[in-house]
Amino acid sequence: MLRFLLAAAMAVAPAAAQPFPAEAEEAAATLMARALEDETGYQVIEDLTTEVGPRLAGSEAEARARGWALARLRSMGFENVRVEAFSIPFWAREGEALRIVEPFPQALRITALGGTVGTGRRGVTGEVVRFESLGALMAAPMDGSLEGKVVFVDEGMTRTQDGSGYGVAVAKRSGAAQEGAKRGAIAALIRSVGTDQHRFPHTGMMRYEEDGEKIPTAALSWPDAEQLQRAMERGPVTVRLDLSVVTEKDAPSGNVIAEIPGRTDEVVLIGAHLDSWDLGTGAIDDASGVGITTGAAKLILDYVAETGEPPLRTIRLILFGSEEVGLLGGKAYAEAHADELGDHVAAAESDFGAGRVWQLETRFAEDAQEAGDRLARILAPLGVARGGNEAEGGPDLTAIAEAGVPVVTLKQNGWDYFDLHHTEDDTLDKVDPDDIAQNVAAYAAFAWLAANAEEGFRGGEATQGAQ
Amino acid sequence: MLRFLLAAAMAVAPAAAQPFPAEAEEAAATLMARALEDETGYQVIEDLTTEVGPRLAGSEAEARARGWALARLRSMGFENVRVEAFSIPFWAREGEALRIVEPFPQALRITALGGTVGTGRRGVTGEVVRFESLGALMAAPMDGSLEGKVVFVDEGMTRTQDGSGYGVAVAKRSGAAQEGAKRGAIAALIRSVGTDQHRFPHTGMMRYEEDGEKIPTAALSWPDAEQLQRAMERGPVTVRLDLSVVTEKDAPSGNVIAEIPGRTDEVVLIGAHLDSWDLGTGAIDDASGVGITTGAAKLILDYVAETGEPPLRTIRLILFGSEEVGLLGGKAYAEAHADELGDHVAAAESDFGAGRVWQLETRFAEDAQEAGDRLARILAPLGVARGGNEAEGGPDLTAIAEAGVPVVTLKQNGWDYFDLHHTEDDTLDKVDPDDIAQNVAAYAAFAWLAANAEEGFRGGEATQGAQ
Repeated sequence: MLRFLLAAAMAVAPAAAQPFPAEAEEAAATLMARALEDETGYQVIEDLTTEVGPRLAGSEAEARARGWALARLRSMGFENVRVEAFSIPFWAREGEALRIVEPFPQALRITALGGTVGTGRRGVTGEVVRFESLGALMAAPMDGSLEGKVVFVDEGMTRTQDGSGYGVAVAKRSGAAQEGAKRGAIAALIRSVGTDQHRFPHTGMMRYEEDGEKIPTAALSWPDAEQLQRAMERGPVTVRLDLSVVTEKDAPSGNVIAEIPGRTDEVVLIGAHLDSWDLGTGAIDDASGVGITTGAAKLILDYVAETGEPPLRTIRLILFGSEEVGLLGGKAYAEAHADELGDHVAAAESDFGAGRVWQLETRFAEDAQEAGDRLARILAPLGVARGGNEAEGGPDLTAIAEAGVPVVTLKQNGWDYFDLHHTEDDTLDKVDPDDIAQNVAAYAAFAWLAANAEEGFRGGEATQGAQ
Repeated sequence: MLRFLLAAAMAVAPAAAQPFPAEAEEAAATLMARALEDETGYQVIEDLTTEVGPRLAGSEAEARARGWALARLRSMGFENVRVEAFSIPFWAREGEALRIVEPFPQALRITALGGTVGTGRRGVTGEVVRFESLGALMAAPMDGSLEGKVVFVDEGMTRTQDGSGYGVAVAKRSGAAQEGAKRGAIAALIRSVGTDQHRFPHTGMMRYEEDGEKIPTAALSWPDAEQLQRAMERGPVTVRLDLSVVTEKDAPSGNVIAEIPGRTDEVVLIGAHLDSWDLGTGAIDDASGVGITTGAAKLILDYVAETGEPPLRTIRLILFGSEEVGLLGGKAYAEAHADELGDHVAAAESDFGAGRVWQLETRFAEDAQEAGDRLARILAPLGVARGGNEAEGGPDLTAIAEAGVPVVTLKQNGWDYFDLHHTEDDTLDKVDPDDIAQNVAAYAAFAWLAANAEEGFRGGEATQGAQ
């Protein structure tokens, strides 16, 4: 069906084919202008963070979030609104405390890292051994050199606009416990993976090696890491760590899906993740993405209703579940939809906070670069520049991007993102409605253009969904 | 003795008497220059906040702080280093939690206000009634209009350089519980008395009326107050408050005192408070004051050792205990030293954080204004301007100022002070060593000049300590 339509379209196309029909570009301009005046995106963020609040993967709160999203998306008028359920291993914090026992008794602020084992009721007490980086820990001898010790990886993180400091810093989140355990350590502490100087420890998922010893692990806030460091400058320091956690083998989660049906079987996917960590209300991570993509889809929905002209391809909005605990919603989607991924023309996930979009990255075939360039030119009035062609598309798109689906990253300014990321302080007041509107504009234009592009972005034959 | 010395001094004084001898002014200039290069003040702050940490009034930690201060002041070489003990009613938080029960279940971040009663194990559950200000609550009818309700005083605080927003905002800290109880409320919540937009609730002392009903009371962080407000915009909200507290009738506290002996019985007093709230390490409130005044006194001590010339009057450094729970150290000092307050020539307490001094306020007799003006002129190179003559001198000086002791306020820039005040986030990293050095310079110059002034600042006869 699509091939037929495309063939028909191409038959009447002008000599030097433009990637997007002129009417689609005009519609994109209209959508962008409307988006900048529209508050739906922000309102969705406010409602989700207020009416549900924190929504830990697999929890009763995440289930409430799905119910909230279903009701909201249905009332907005989307089609095929549904949950695609899956189950996950559940983990939740129950209690967490760290104290310097000797020589300067005092509490330090920590948070358990996602997936950590607990300490048992008696806690774990030991002398702290500090490493300036994960690399320094890895360079330490393996022969039980940390036997009975609490390892402390006190590595910082570089603040960057594009978030590139994260990839470097986050390795210690699993690495401290993994590498510490190999050397005999009984617990692992890290300086939070974050850039703020407030007393907010940052949580986030960690993993043990399959055959490795599992030692409890937690993150200190920046000021507490400095405090521990100062205490250690004065001599040996003993701490006691108490972590209590709850786990469950199979807990319910799911992806919430809504559609604007197109005239073909092809699909353009935009989305965000519905779950959040438990500490804050997940306003920037990732209610903002939910608001941005839902706001964009709603603008398109209204535009379609107004014109009576559906897009060429279906625009599918996905609110992924359980992103924070291992991109599980994205994986579940890729599995459930393995058969139709060839018809997925393009995908973009918004999961980098509430900052403005400043760059368009693509991962398109070489002979589809012109479409990327054109897209960037259309978004330029929003302050968006053309980026490279190595887009990741967003964490929940990892699996489908690996399966060959072309992805786009509408790259947001993440300068302040890691001040708030995975902390208690991730709350609505950090979100600027004007910045959200700019994001909505970019997503609406992208989704509409991709859904009406003359060809796909896979290059050659694959552009007609053959893959 | 002092009268004799002053009479002798005046006999040789030039016709138009300067308030301060030329040598004293020269010494003050030397002290200021040295202070700006000296790190003692900052080091004291670092050591106290690291080696003791939080030091709640009446706690074992406050006792450790006294021990720490005694050892430090003795090793620095001060004379008459001692503790003047007193006892206080002890209060400590043990547990604190607030949850929205209906319709949007989620935890909100609170902290118990100092002095509050607990809720009992079953907590207190009720519908929230919000008031925009304490005034609005006070305007509500008295006849049980809040029967069974949880009152919420959602009043903001104005950010100011001089901290004047605090006096207005702090009234709700006791007022919410007092006025709520009179109207039948079962618990009282306030938006924190603070200016930050982070998820740090601010604690601080509250008091019940003597014959009033005591209802539990706590403060929400700014983002949590907004969250509760948003939830209430959507309909009735029920919350559950759980507070558990520990109290003790008589707990040990004390003031730590150190001196640089003068040549007369007269005294110039500088100081700060040693205790802090339990949430942070009390870096700005008030380890900074401890560092500033100790650093200033130490510079003078070294100067005296170098010149072999003690000051005319004794310079007494006081590190007050139990300021946070009702200015108890200041009251104990005023009682214990009631007989010698007439010999107290001037006093200044540093208790407004770590910001730079920008103004000199005095509370001197009318005919001693010239001395205040001259003092300001001497401090001008530090960026200090002359303020008014209604100085409060600092919270622990309230009692002795009421008893007639002339006081000085070296007014600090408090623009950011209430972002951190009484929160977990009051930690060393918020303190700038250069700003501390500027404060040390101002205190050293003030203390030396006051200790060597030709006359006191009480005007007329009283200047000779007769009172």
